[in-house]
Amino acid sequence: MIEAGIIGGAGYTAGELIRILLNHPEVHLNFVFSTSQPGKPLSSIHQDLIGETEIKFTDKINSEADVIFLCLGHGNSKKFLAENQFSEKTKIVDLSTDFRQKSEDHDFVYGLPELNKDHIKKANFIGNPGCFATAITLAILPLAKNSILKDEVHVNAVTGATGAGTSLSETTHFSWRDNNFSAYKSFEHQHLHEIGQSLKQLQADHEAAINFIPNRGNFSRGIHATAYTKFSADLGEARKLYQEFYNDAAFTFVTEEELHLKQVVNTNKCLMRLQKFGDNLLITSVMDNLLKGASGQAVQNMNLMFGLEEKMGLNLKASYF
Amino acid sequence: MIEAGIIGGAGYTAGELIRILLNHPEVHLNFVFSTSQPGKPLSSIHQDLIGETEIKFTDKINSEADVIFLCLGHGNSKKFLAENQFSEKTKIVDLSTDFRQKSEDHDFVYGLPELNKDHIKKANFIGNPGCFATAITLAILPLAKNSILKDEVHVNAVTGATGAGTSLSETTHFSWRDNNFSAYKSFEHQHLHEIGQSLKQLQADHEAAINFIPNRGNFSRGIHATAYTKFSADLGEARKLYQEFYNDAAFTFVTEEELHLKQVVNTNKCLMRLQKFGDNLLITSVMDNLLKGASGQAVQNMNLMFGLEEKMGLNLKASYF
Amino acid sequence: MIEAGIIGGAGYTAGELIRILLNHPEVHLNFVFSTSQPGKPLSSIHQDLIGETEIKFTDKINSEADVIFLCLGHGNSKKFLAENQFSEKTKIVDLSTDFRQKSEDHDFVYGLPELNKDHIKKANFIGNPGCFATAITLAILPLAKNSILKDEVHVNAVTGATGAGTSLSETTHFSWRDNNFSAYKSFEHQHLHEIGQSLKQLQADHEAAINFIPNRGNFSRGIHATAYTKFSADLGEARKLYQEFYNDAAFTFVTEEELHLKQVVNTNKCLMRLQKFGDNLLITSVMDNLLKGASGQAVQNMNLMFGLEEKMGLNLKASYF
Amino acid sequence: MIEAGIIGGAGYTAGELIRILLNHPEVHLNFVFSTSQPGKPLSSIHQDLIGETEIKFTDKINSEADVIFLCLGHGNSKKFLAENQFSEKTKIVDLSTDFRQKSEDHDFVYGLPELNKDHIKKANFIGNPGCFATAITLAILPLAKNSILKDEVHVNAVTGATGAGTSLSETTHFSWRDNNFSAYKSFEHQHLHEIGQSLKQLQADHEAAINFIPNRGNFSRGIHATAYTKFSADLGEARKLYQEFYNDAAFTFVTEEELHLKQVVNTNKCLMRLQKFGDNLLITSVMDNLLKGASGQAVQNMNLMFGLEEKMGLNLKASYF
Repeated sequence: MIEAGIIGGAGYTAGELIRILLNHPEVHLNFVFSTSQPGKPLSSIHQDLIGETEIKFTDKINSEADVIFLCLGHGNSKKFLAENQFSEKTKIVDLSTDFRQKSEDHDFVYGLPELNKDHIKKANFIGNPGCFATAITLAILPLAKNSILKDEVHVNAVTGATGAGTSLSETTHFSWRDNNFSAYKSFEHQHLHEIGQSLKQLQADHEAAINFIPNRGNFSRGIHATAYTKFSADLGEARKLYQEFYNDAAFTFVTEEELHLKQVVNTNKCLMRLQKFGDNLLITSVMDNLLKGASGQAVQNMNLMFGLEEKMGLNLKASYF
Repeated sequence: MIEAGIIGGAGYTAGELIRILLNHPEVHLNFVFSTSQPGKPLSSIHQDLIGETEIKFTDKINSEADVIFLCLGHGNSKKFLAENQFSEKTKIVDLSTDFRQKSEDHDFVYGLPELNKDHIKKANFIGNPGCFATAITLAILPLAKNSILKDEVHVNAVTGATGAGTSLSETTHFSWRDNNFSAYKSFEHQHLHEIGQSLKQLQADHEAAINFIPNRGNFSRGIHATAYTKFSADLGEARKLYQEFYNDAAFTFVTEEELHLKQVVNTNKCLMRLQKFGDNLLITSVMDNLLKGASGQAVQNMNLMFGLEEKMGLNLKASYF
Repeated sequence: MIEAGIIGGAGYTAGELIRILLNHPEVHLNFVFSTSQPGKPLSSIHQDLIGETEIKFTDKINSEADVIFLCLGHGNSKKFLAENQFSEKTKIVDLSTDFRQKSEDHDFVYGLPELNKDHIKKANFIGNPGCFATAITLAILPLAKNSILKDEVHVNAVTGATGAGTSLSETTHFSWRDNNFSAYKSFEHQHLHEIGQSLKQLQADHEAAINFIPNRGNFSRGIHATAYTKFSADLGEARKLYQEFYNDAAFTFVTEEELHLKQVVNTNKCLMRLQKFGDNLLITSVMDNLLKGASGQAVQNMNLMFGLEEKMGLNLKASYF
Repeated sequence: MIEAGIIGGAGYTAGELIRILLNHPEVHLNFVFSTSQPGKPLSSIHQDLIGETEIKFTDKINSEADVIFLCLGHGNSKKFLAENQFSEKTKIVDLSTDFRQKSEDHDFVYGLPELNKDHIKKANFIGNPGCFATAITLAILPLAKNSILKDEVHVNAVTGATGAGTSLSETTHFSWRDNNFSAYKSFEHQHLHEIGQSLKQLQADHEAAINFIPNRGNFSRGIHATAYTKFSADLGEARKLYQEFYNDAAFTFVTEEELHLKQVVNTNKCLMRLQKFGDNLLITSVMDNLLKGASGQAVQNMNLMFGLEEKMGLNLKASYF
């Protein structure tokens, strides 16, 4: 069994990791580290876990764990690793932004399996992608792969309230968000950096803007994204490019059906649909921000790093309703 | 014009008062006092007010106002009135719990017009009823009026997230409350005191328990309550008692139709339905917790105190959807 | 008093008209025509109306009404007017698409007051704008007014479930729509025609595409739209153009504040915010699809046609929560 | 592998069964029978199944299946079994009301494992309990077990929109149900029959009324129920009774924590909390109406009938948010 530890156990992504790992056939949840909740049962925070486990949060780290998942606030992963030592064999998956950008300062591989599967298999350290970044990058990556991403891409995406984390704020108050909708960080969302890095990895000359308007939706889970750009060939050609690119993807599927968000909620899947209008190729993509956009993808990366079947522990029942 | 002031202007009930008073034909909104927001436009907090008013929050009180509404946290109204002086003519409507219980220490009249209309007309000081208290008291008051409230009453009611106020907490976080439901303060809700006081006012020997389970619903506005108790006569008799009791009520109506919450959201109405099953009389009652349950009723009380038409400024368009 | 009739009284827009007209100081609701509900009280369908009115649906038309509102399915207004005769004085506001396109076959004026106020004042027949068309046209009309709408406009908008009408379908089933999100009719929404007509009215040479992706949101009321296009001048200049254009608008306001949908729900307002990113001007616009996008605007048009104050009967309390 | 068939494959409970059985380690989904959708892929109706399976609906029945699940409308299971023949070995789980009442006309065992585990293990035919019946029966069964259910029980429960099935109606329209709440079938819900039967099975002299008010909640999944009755002993004693009764239950847990609905959504669990107020014992119970209240319990029953581990295939990740 793989002995797994979670660092920063009280947030949404940690909760999702716990839910997945408790049922993962090759993993034993060794410890869940939390400086704020030591000694309390996991179910005191992740209240669905009653009847599932008796594990308690701890403020002790097992430095011999086979894998640790860092579920810390952005900026804190780097700090944590500077202050804590792990064994040589310990693999690390970091869910923050700290190691997503390639740099000479670290050996983290960007953990988007559709882009970097072979690297991930050999990696010890993974920078797990952001949620919007995953949905949007997957929507346009096959165009970059074929070096035909020449024009601006127009992206509009909406995320659920869990995307903002557990912290309380005006825009996560139920009375505010219920039956509401709003745009935020238009043209300036921080995920544009990692999206650009991934595109350039496949199409070095990529320069055109990604015009991205993120929105706050009045739902809890999921991302729905639309992206369109000029595309000179016909729809059949587009579908061929996408099918080829995602041919061996474990969780990403291209479909001709109309899509809606709840098809993927509580699963690790990303579904995509292609349409053509005039000279515009429109790609719609849906996924769960906490799973394919965070904890599910983290476990997918773990599976790849440990040579397990990529989908192990991730055949999740969609809630759908 | 009646010069009106609001004390504690940043919360939900103050926002509703502002929305109502700005359109009230006999009121001029003289000032909105807020220690936290002085100098900022009302629309910086109550963001729907863009285009409606240029008034700013102030930290100065006009002690010559004709009427002031206290929208302070429970316990703070008493303190505020001890520290601030108003003119002899200034009428006061307090929306907190501070003056709802009759006492020799104060001259506040409990502001439930269906119970105390004549007193309210002559009053200078009003203790405005609580939201659950209004919905539940109205549901059973005609029985007390006829001195036939002898058995236990079984009450279950659900309120929206605005019932918990603007403060942020786990149970008002959208991710928690969305598509969720939970009971709280079962058998021990603080409104049981004022309900009991109103029942005893009409039926001095009332003693049987009001078993009340409040619930948190995943909606923003409104209260839906069901109450049942033993009732020996038939349904026709029950309807007669209720119709008579509410005959001159401005906003409370008894209907034979099936009820649902959104019939009254964004209105000052309370709708009630009677049914009989075996020897149980079931009363369903619905109203908006922020209007009939707070600010709407406060303005209704103001209208009565100033000799205005009771419904003035309160013919509100239901949002319904 | 203006004697008003409503044709097709069972749908959402008819319900909203009834709610507004019952409180309108210069209007008497003369009749509500419904072939499906004759003899039933209005409150049997519009169930919030208990206690508001005793009017019943009728299958008789008063051809001497001062104004009638047609709330019929698209295509049925033309048919209805061919089969029914009204007096010479009767003014007509049609809420369907039937008369929105200018044509030599009819004398209907497109009822967007921000564009056609003077024409509306003299008109007898109004083609009331579509909901998406109102939100989007208002967002970009000041650019057309200044003949600087040269490039493609990228529009993404989301509407509530009431936008789909009362008919039952998979995508209006609560279990489907709750916590869901989906795009539909991308690049092909029927409102593009009326948007184009309005733009060309102010900028005859307008030709660039309006790329419009409509979405189904999991809320009941409202439209939130973002639109961006190339704009060479600075943000100050943009604000100046918009402020000037909407200077005398009764319900349309430009603000520098961040916007969200619930600021306008249950009001007749349209709020707009301008931002500039690189050479893109981003306009966010929010309004209530059933009011400014349908029945509220219809009454606004009626007020203008009858020489009443433009806002009469439309100072509606926002539900906000 | 157990060859399983589903009869009536287009509804909610069939969808949930498919989702569970596709991942069940000992089951092969042999066929999904639908007269309305033959030849279409399952994913055309259950749209989350893209990427999960290529199975198509069929109008042919495999009479040699090891187990079939009947997901037909109430009344249709009886009819279906009269018209279709299965092999001697074929076990049947019926999710309708048709065989829940004990009768000399059939050999179906009421499939509530907490009540009938030993019978279920030996059964060939299961009448799968109703959703409200499961939540309420589990809440009070330990009292009947100890023959102390003497007084009236006061039950209030709320269910999600999926409880009403896929059919479209006014009360399942999103615009109606969103942010709404309503009671229905008060004192007369059909599940009272099966609740009474289960109570009498353990306490033959049980006679007191179960006063049950069901409600429609504005969420998709889940049941939240409160039930209270007179209980003379103390809370510790109550907890002891419940803990003993549910000691070997696979999915039913008694907790001292405050409960909320989302703790169990998308799981097969039932969580219960006990409190005492005066002489009233209050039991709160939460579960997922489509899982523990339907398809999850059906698979639990299948596991028991086939001698499998009771939880096999039912370790479902809670969606929680």
